[in-house]
Amino acid sequence: MPTATDSSSATRNPACAVPDRLLELWGELRDLKSLAELLDWDQETMMPRGGSENRAKMAASLAGAIHQKLTSERLWETILACEEEARSAGDELLTAQVREAKRDASRARRIPESLAKELAEASSLGTTAWQEARKGSDFGMFAGHLQRLLSLAKQKAAALHPAGKAYDALLDGFEPGATEEQLVPLFDHLVAELSPWVQQVVESGRRVDESPVLGKFAKAKQRELSRHAISAFGFDFDRGRLDLSVHPFCVGVTPTDVRLTWRYLENDLRSALYGALHEAGHGLYEQGIPEELWRTPLGDAVSLGVHESQSRLWENQVGRSIGFWRWLWPKFAELFPGQAAKTSPESVWPALHTVRPSLVRVEADEATYNLHIALRFRIERALFANDLAVADLPSAWNDACEELLGVRPDRDADGVLQDIHWSQALFGYFPTYTLGTMVSAQLFQAAQESLGPQDGAFADGDFAPLLAWLRKHVHRHGRRYGASQLVEQVTGRPLAADDLLEYLQASVARAYGL
Amino acid sequence: MPTATDSSSATRNPACAVPDRLLELWGELRDLKSLAELLDWDQETMMPRGGSENRAKMAASLAGAIHQKLTSERLWETILACEEEARSAGDELLTAQVREAKRDASRARRIPESLAKELAEASSLGTTAWQEARKGSDFGMFAGHLQRLLSLAKQKAAALHPAGKAYDALLDGFEPGATEEQLVPLFDHLVAELSPWVQQVVESGRRVDESPVLGKFAKAKQRELSRHAISAFGFDFDRGRLDLSVHPFCVGVTPTDVRLTWRYLENDLRSALYGALHEAGHGLYEQGIPEELWRTPLGDAVSLGVHESQSRLWENQVGRSIGFWRWLWPKFAELFPGQAAKTSPESVWPALHTVRPSLVRVEADEATYNLHIALRFRIERALFANDLAVADLPSAWNDACEELLGVRPDRDADGVLQDIHWSQALFGYFPTYTLGTMVSAQLFQAAQESLGPQDGAFADGDFAPLLAWLRKHVHRHGRRYGASQLVEQVTGRPLAADDLLEYLQASVARAYGL
Repeated sequence: MPTATDSSSATRNPACAVPDRLLELWGELRDLKSLAELLDWDQETMMPRGGSENRAKMAASLAGAIHQKLTSERLWETILACEEEARSAGDELLTAQVREAKRDASRARRIPESLAKELAEASSLGTTAWQEARKGSDFGMFAGHLQRLLSLAKQKAAALHPAGKAYDALLDGFEPGATEEQLVPLFDHLVAELSPWVQQVVESGRRVDESPVLGKFAKAKQRELSRHAISAFGFDFDRGRLDLSVHPFCVGVTPTDVRLTWRYLENDLRSALYGALHEAGHGLYEQGIPEELWRTPLGDAVSLGVHESQSRLWENQVGRSIGFWRWLWPKFAELFPGQAAKTSPESVWPALHTVRPSLVRVEADEATYNLHIALRFRIERALFANDLAVADLPSAWNDACEELLGVRPDRDADGVLQDIHWSQALFGYFPTYTLGTMVSAQLFQAAQESLGPQDGAFADGDFAPLLAWLRKHVHRHGRRYGASQLVEQVTGRPLAADDLLEYLQASVARAYGL
Repeated sequence: MPTATDSSSATRNPACAVPDRLLELWGELRDLKSLAELLDWDQETMMPRGGSENRAKMAASLAGAIHQKLTSERLWETILACEEEARSAGDELLTAQVREAKRDASRARRIPESLAKELAEASSLGTTAWQEARKGSDFGMFAGHLQRLLSLAKQKAAALHPAGKAYDALLDGFEPGATEEQLVPLFDHLVAELSPWVQQVVESGRRVDESPVLGKFAKAKQRELSRHAISAFGFDFDRGRLDLSVHPFCVGVTPTDVRLTWRYLENDLRSALYGALHEAGHGLYEQGIPEELWRTPLGDAVSLGVHESQSRLWENQVGRSIGFWRWLWPKFAELFPGQAAKTSPESVWPALHTVRPSLVRVEADEATYNLHIALRFRIERALFANDLAVADLPSAWNDACEELLGVRPDRDADGVLQDIHWSQALFGYFPTYTLGTMVSAQLFQAAQESLGPQDGAFADGDFAPLLAWLRKHVHRHGRRYGASQLVEQVTGRPLAADDLLEYLQASVARAYGL
């Protein structure tokens, strides 16, 4: 007769360690989430204009069905039974699977349905109000909505972590395990170095010649250039697409169906190319979720920060390297012969490393972008610590902007009203942008320590060693390890701002001849 | 104090008569069905090749979620309560709403989950086996699968209508209320007239000159021609799309998001244009489901037959009219000046009304198409009456084909293996094609009796009166009336084959100069 242990492990899938009964429930849940991803993609790329009202209802019904599955008693009891099984079997992989399943389900179960509905409604109204307020550059039109969103977000935080700090509870939704206490020193270090140094560059009076990337670049040719680079990086177009949209994004419907979008400026080559390389980095991560983990609790990205590290790494460390541009040159010359005749990879390169403090985050360069994020992190912390009132936000924003970036908005639309995030109750989301950028620099440093300098390989179009390294050290684990643990495990040291600072300062110094 | 009746009607939506509690459940169900529609569309038009395996899982999970909602106790009890309310309120609209809700839910509830799963699995395996069998033109490779599918379909029929005829139970799934007894005389009449008459045309030895629609027609220009015509018909591209696919189809995600697809032959103008006009007819119906019925039990098409009547009407009665071609001519001449210089609307017209008996349904002309359907209807009835064994199918098919069409397949791929339907357990589906074609002719006849002859209006590009008539008499009711009742109500007489026969015989006689 088989023992009880034998019989239960007989119903476990050996590749992912998950018992069949949890596998089935989780697979169905994951499939519905994949539908939600597809719905988003379709809305931004394909949906006819008139379809939006009915589409909103579809999205809400799907969200309801997902919430129902995630909070069902059946799933919860299955998770608890599997937890017991993991404990008695001492299986490390199963323990990680159960940990993540329990995390997702318990977060969902802690938020009362009435609060979830209030948040959804306030976000919907808030987004509309924000759009109007930004159009009129009038913070007063949005203040009441923001006040309500903030109060609901605090209620959500209290429901999630009754004993903890409110901001940490929200952060945890985007960057599991991250805390304000952990992030503050990282950001402080970054700002302390970056902010004065940006001022030095500005005050040096030096300029970079951007003409090599300015001109007239036909849409279809820009698209071809981007696809050429993305394919070379290893993005598999048999398992993915690239389409136009208003804002570039990446949606991983499944690892075998990953969809990137792009946009372009006809007169500046950088907008389309670097947007596409960025999204391709996200896409390579999505395509890299291993088959044996897909539709299991571990079959997801670690965090927004780690996701962003992949996009930044391919966009910046690879895409802004001189090696990359040497490799790209023949294609560039084929597509834009007039432009190529006047320039060279070496003269394009500085135009990829400009520093120009500005008011608007989404138009910021590689270096000052992080100061925009530091500004938002500071404001959010003050709001959640009750150190800043909503009414005082515009002036607090403008003061911090002046302090960090040396420029001061003269209208709310270019200041506190510029981002959509808060109108959708996304508090604690911003820091992940810079966190990811730090991780990208530290990962690339570790990759080069292991593989040797990659610039020569890039010049030969050989991006495979880097991708294989990322697959092995990051992608294949899904979310088996938390972000901090993963970074430390892969790079041999805790996350710090040093590698990012070194990368930025070296690039800019060279570009500006400082 | 309000009475009980007051309070319950206070929670009813007056536009659709449905109580809020049913409205909410039905709306969520409808939204998930809309997702399934979108998923199908995406799979045929956008999905990357490698995505299919994970996509199949997504589709299965969504089907499971829909089935769960449709068979839930909560929905069933709500329907029963609303039935009671409709009875006591004597509300005719609410009665119809409840009737359709109850119909859908009880059909789903009658099929045991194990049978539904067996059918899904047998269909999946059957489709693959059919593809292989067709490739090798070897019915033996498919016979075992078909036997199993047939046996499961009989079990399904017995579960749906334990006391009735098996074939009727299946028919009812596509054409609610239709029975074999009702359809046989219609088909018998049609075949008795059409079959010998087709032979007469063939034996006359006359030919139609098809050169006006043959040549070289660029894809983009064919697309423009189709869009031009579809827009003029009244299809709203703000609430719809047109994309390429392998087989043309129409998907109504919602009435504000209706997606048509097309394909083309470079050397024959008819394939793309008439495929697109056909799908646009389906699309006009989907866009015509009124807002107040959408997401209610009545907010759907009456039946496959009535749906097909809309596609056939715009494709044939409108699109193959001389008036339509006179209107289309300036656009045709602009796009294909070389072709237009050699011909005229009057010389194109006969090429739209050819009669050529052939072996394959999807390549058949307007007249002989119905004989292909009659053949399938005959075979299906014999199978379900246990008058025909699966092993004898190929020869029975070939005999019937010879009898009805005067041609005999010499390989199974051109005979019994040509259609996908049976491999997906779609028995009782075929008759709706010809049923719809009969309805289209009878509706158009009634429309012209009411509006006057439309050919002149078509020549002026004025398709609005016809669309308004269809909106008023067909579209706006959703499925408030059954197909038979609707046809009789709108045309003043029961459905018959006469108008179709008259239309076909008159067109062909003129085209062939008989």
